[in-house]
Amino acid sequence: MDSSIKASPLGEEIVSELRAALGADYVCTGAEDLDRYSRCTIPWRSRCAAVVFPGSAEEVARVVRIAVRHRSAVWPSSKGRNWGYGTTLAIEDGAIVMILERMNRILEVNEELAYAVIEPGVTYEQFNAHLRSNGYKLWIDCIDGSAQGSVIGNALERGVGETPYGDHFGNLCGLEVVLPDGELVHVGGAIKGLKTWHTHKWGAGPYLEGIFTQSNFGIVTQAGVWLMPQPEAYNSFVYEIRDERHLPQVLDSFRRLALTGVVNTKLHMINDFVSMTILTQRIGENVRQDGPLSDADLDALRRKYGISPWNCAGGIYGTRGQVRLQRSLLRKALSPYGRLIFAADWQLPFIERLIDWSWKSPLVRRMTELGVGTSLPVLESVPHVHKILQGIPTEFFVKHAYYRYRHQRPEKDVQPARDRCGLIWFAPILPFTNADVWPFIHACKERFVAHGFDFYVAMLLMNPRSVICLMAVIYDQEDAQETAHSQQLYEDLLAEMRARQYQQYRAGLQSWGGLFKDAPEMQRLNARIKAALDPGNILAPGHYGIGGPDAAKRREDD
Amino acid sequence: MDSSIKASPLGEEIVSELRAALGADYVCTGAEDLDRYSRCTIPWRSRCAAVVFPGSAEEVARVVRIAVRHRSAVWPSSKGRNWGYGTTLAIEDGAIVMILERMNRILEVNEELAYAVIEPGVTYEQFNAHLRSNGYKLWIDCIDGSAQGSVIGNALERGVGETPYGDHFGNLCGLEVVLPDGELVHVGGAIKGLKTWHTHKWGAGPYLEGIFTQSNFGIVTQAGVWLMPQPEAYNSFVYEIRDERHLPQVLDSFRRLALTGVVNTKLHMINDFVSMTILTQRIGENVRQDGPLSDADLDALRRKYGISPWNCAGGIYGTRGQVRLQRSLLRKALSPYGRLIFAADWQLPFIERLIDWSWKSPLVRRMTELGVGTSLPVLESVPHVHKILQGIPTEFFVKHAYYRYRHQRPEKDVQPARDRCGLIWFAPILPFTNADVWPFIHACKERFVAHGFDFYVAMLLMNPRSVICLMAVIYDQEDAQETAHSQQLYEDLLAEMRARQYQQYRAGLQSWGGLFKDAPEMQRLNARIKAALDPGNILAPGHYGIGGPDAAKRREDD
Repeated sequence: MDSSIKASPLGEEIVSELRAALGADYVCTGAEDLDRYSRCTIPWRSRCAAVVFPGSAEEVARVVRIAVRHRSAVWPSSKGRNWGYGTTLAIEDGAIVMILERMNRILEVNEELAYAVIEPGVTYEQFNAHLRSNGYKLWIDCIDGSAQGSVIGNALERGVGETPYGDHFGNLCGLEVVLPDGELVHVGGAIKGLKTWHTHKWGAGPYLEGIFTQSNFGIVTQAGVWLMPQPEAYNSFVYEIRDERHLPQVLDSFRRLALTGVVNTKLHMINDFVSMTILTQRIGENVRQDGPLSDADLDALRRKYGISPWNCAGGIYGTRGQVRLQRSLLRKALSPYGRLIFAADWQLPFIERLIDWSWKSPLVRRMTELGVGTSLPVLESVPHVHKILQGIPTEFFVKHAYYRYRHQRPEKDVQPARDRCGLIWFAPILPFTNADVWPFIHACKERFVAHGFDFYVAMLLMNPRSVICLMAVIYDQEDAQETAHSQQLYEDLLAEMRARQYQQYRAGLQSWGGLFKDAPEMQRLNARIKAALDPGNILAPGHYGIGGPDAAKRREDD
Repeated sequence: MDSSIKASPLGEEIVSELRAALGADYVCTGAEDLDRYSRCTIPWRSRCAAVVFPGSAEEVARVVRIAVRHRSAVWPSSKGRNWGYGTTLAIEDGAIVMILERMNRILEVNEELAYAVIEPGVTYEQFNAHLRSNGYKLWIDCIDGSAQGSVIGNALERGVGETPYGDHFGNLCGLEVVLPDGELVHVGGAIKGLKTWHTHKWGAGPYLEGIFTQSNFGIVTQAGVWLMPQPEAYNSFVYEIRDERHLPQVLDSFRRLALTGVVNTKLHMINDFVSMTILTQRIGENVRQDGPLSDADLDALRRKYGISPWNCAGGIYGTRGQVRLQRSLLRKALSPYGRLIFAADWQLPFIERLIDWSWKSPLVRRMTELGVGTSLPVLESVPHVHKILQGIPTEFFVKHAYYRYRHQRPEKDVQPARDRCGLIWFAPILPFTNADVWPFIHACKERFVAHGFDFYVAMLLMNPRSVICLMAVIYDQEDAQETAHSQQLYEDLLAEMRARQYQQYRAGLQSWGGLFKDAPEMQRLNARIKAALDPGNILAPGHYGIGGPDAAKRREDD
């Protein structure tokens, strides 16, 4: 945790072996490179000893074999954009960080069966551009995070997107994996090629793909990804809830709509503070600069930006008739509790022009806001929501990480880790019921307030039965006290979650050590598989609580 | 393979330990019991040494620990209805067969979140009856096989049902498993209870549930099962294709309907011979009794029963408006190529009465057939299709196994293994394209003909991208030569599949030894996990090609 710790450099022998394996250009040990890959938005410090950039599965295997011989830890990362959870950080100093961004080929697109085969370096932006520029009638599912994030990396962390294909791991099919001893396996497939490798998810024999997600049992070097056929019609919607007393009815409605398949997107519901972090920065507002917003400040900002307590977004897809019907079903279910706005492709240019005009003229703005029945900032999110729900990534939403940043945030090339923003993601998952969601959210809010932070919560529907209550602790990394508080808040939130018997759907580095506190038998099961596949414990030791930093030592003591 | 082999009985010591662990009533070693559990419809002979019936997970663990101490193989089975794939047979003689049918509690039903928690002894019939008699507005997904089959057993074999919840493993969530050393784990959950155990499928850390399917890594003693909320409206449909030249257009239409979510059921397409095996037996028809149907016989039977070359079935669910819209979308896509008949709940009593009358009077029959536009036997399947697509199991379809049986088949308590019917399932899965499906089906048909068998194929949609081409080799077990031919045909079909680079979605005992011929690296990966979890190789050695009969010996030789 002490940022002054300097990792002991790797031995000369291993560095020269790595250089021989990958070429000298792709093995970095200079201080600047090590700095760059030892940064994260969470309050954790560890410094890697080398950064390597293999260009193929064979090169990945070479690195792994070298690491086994030298008993060095290797921490793979597809693109290194896992902000808020650990980015490229290893738990301990001295690791070899492996970045897979050179492996960025799109190997196959099958339009008839609606899938593609890609490497881990492929980004959302690249993937979407490739399909659109080549005229494929297929849509990707992207995240509302970085457009430069890795499609495979996110799926292996079991991240969640937007569309009906938003369960990213659920839509992976057919993995090529380098095991920790360097052996290459085609999980669910066969060395000689198998025609259903990317169409039938479960394969034959035990279904093993899942063991390579949120784990350290292998390095995925290729994957099939199921894609959404471009629908005949598509509408996005935003939904504003102005009166929080309606939240229970809205939640029940959403659950029913999801369970009956009327809504198949990963519905997002965000609270007012989330909207504010997208729209503004603390330094730009006339509010208290050394703590959370006061109630008066919050009210003033709500009014200034016309933000409702809660905003939701989703999409509907199908034939023209189906979309029309779904619109009427959504209206019937949701209109009693809030304001529902639909957007279709043909309306988008008009909405964008209207937004432009409205920003330029207060009169037009007032007329627009009256006419649409919502505020200009909310209207401004409509085109971004509309794009993201058809797989077109945008950097619009990721700027939230800069809310407490002391300097002006960038408009492009948004990279919170590089800029030393303070951001911790806390991502518990709950049954999607009123009895579970609201008491937990209120308890967490109290913890945020107690530690001096603004309460940020976005609810993402994982499936019709479970909702992720994604919370961000946004803090100023330049303020040591605030940084310490952020970590205390995070630990309090974990304790709150554990006491109420929930778990994280995706876990940050700081929580890995305690991940299986209540499931020691799962800890042992994971450890037995780890020991069978990685006896030297070289692959990301401690990632998701498996083969923790001292596991290898423990084994030696036996 | 020699039915005269008698298994050496278990030692007295292990039998008395098993009796002490379970109670004497639940440990059977009598010849009659061993006979009963050493029967299958496939041409394979092995005789078990004991049959045990544990009543709880703790008792399952006790049996496993005893087996480890005595180095005895344990072959678990939920209900023992896995006909055509191996039923309760172990690969080799002398195993302890473990039947879990006493563990048949329905532990929880959660209507709000649409799931239930059940034990492996729970059958489709029991599960459906429990929900309906208690007024839950939830539907199960059943199979068109035995109503007495195990819900969990089928899901662990990754069997496929009928409705949008027909991917049975895909709809399992939260497993309790006894590992081969007797340790109890809550996969995806935690010992202390976790509220999303049955709502969030992937859990935290590596997703491990899949490793307990089609494998021998543990014994599942409890599982969460997602259920379909009873829809506002529901229609089933049957679809007759009278001209085979339309098959490519039908397949393309079905793929598009499935990919766009218009149809979410596990569409079934069956050829004429499948229909005949449901409707009749060879001994009841005036056809050649010692081989396949001649073309003339086939034509005559087609005419007699009014069977089209292909028949399909599926269902649509939703609000009344959605079902109406889906009907019109299906009509538009399918009517050009065949006859589409929808059935709604309110029509069912009328259809059933009409069928009754029509069987009684040739005149009414002719009028009915003209009016409905289909034959009476096809119409007779409508109520069964309609029930099965809302989770109400029926024995109507499972009678096919008796087609070549030399005696009158039973109308109730259909049990082909008990009755020594000859049935081998061959279940390859293919990409759902015309380029894959038809050449393979034609090649397989030639193999059937060459070996003197009627060609039976049912296509089941696994997902919009993959189709199971399920074939049955129906033979007379009392005829030694025909039995030998059935096995040769099966091996030829496996070779055909392998040459074309397809795999089985679910594999029968006779094929396990060669399952990973083209994926030796997957074989090694499975073997490493097996050795880590079951070092004594006592749990179902050789099941799905893992820890084959000689694996333990090989390990000892190392």
